[in-house]
Amino acid sequence: MSQFRFAVNVTPKPGILDPQGRAVEGSLGHLGIEGVSGVRVGRRVELTVEAADPTAATAVVERLARELFANPLIESFEVEPR
Amino acid sequence: MSQFRFAVNVTPKPGILDPQGRAVEGSLGHLGIEGVSGVRVGRRVELTVEAADPTAATAVVERLARELFANPLIESFEVEPR
Repeated sequence: MSQFRFAVNVTPKPGILDPQGRAVEGSLGHLGIEGVSGVRVGRRVELTVEAADPTAATAVVERLARELFANPLIESFEVEPR
Repeated sequence: MSQFRFAVNVTPKPGILDPQGRAVEGSLGHLGIEGVSGVRVGRRVELTVEAADPTAATAVVERLARELFANPLIESFEVEPR
């Protein structure tokens, strides 16, 4: 068994309202920052998986992402080996 | 001016309590998943910056990350060009 480290990036799907992203865009004027757009706020989960090989470890992470980290109706995710 | 897309990954610093990470680890048994450890839950912010060049765009993103996205006392961040 080896240990594999991953990150899962969870972001709101295109077209889904993102109140946190709107809040960030609303703060930019106060900071005097211009030229920033398309702000989307999501989650990032980092974790270590013990498994026989990278394929088995990735399968565990994808199951976790689907069942626990992301709401598939409104969010998409990508699994990133670290 | 060109447009540059970035992601900012914000994670709890090592040693800082991470209640969301603990909650995930506590849920693993119910899902019948073993071998997962070191779960850290953070944020991921994706954004577009209009700037003269990549260096200027990166400077804007780093300022935003420092002043708006991350709490430097308890969180670290990394800027990821997309």
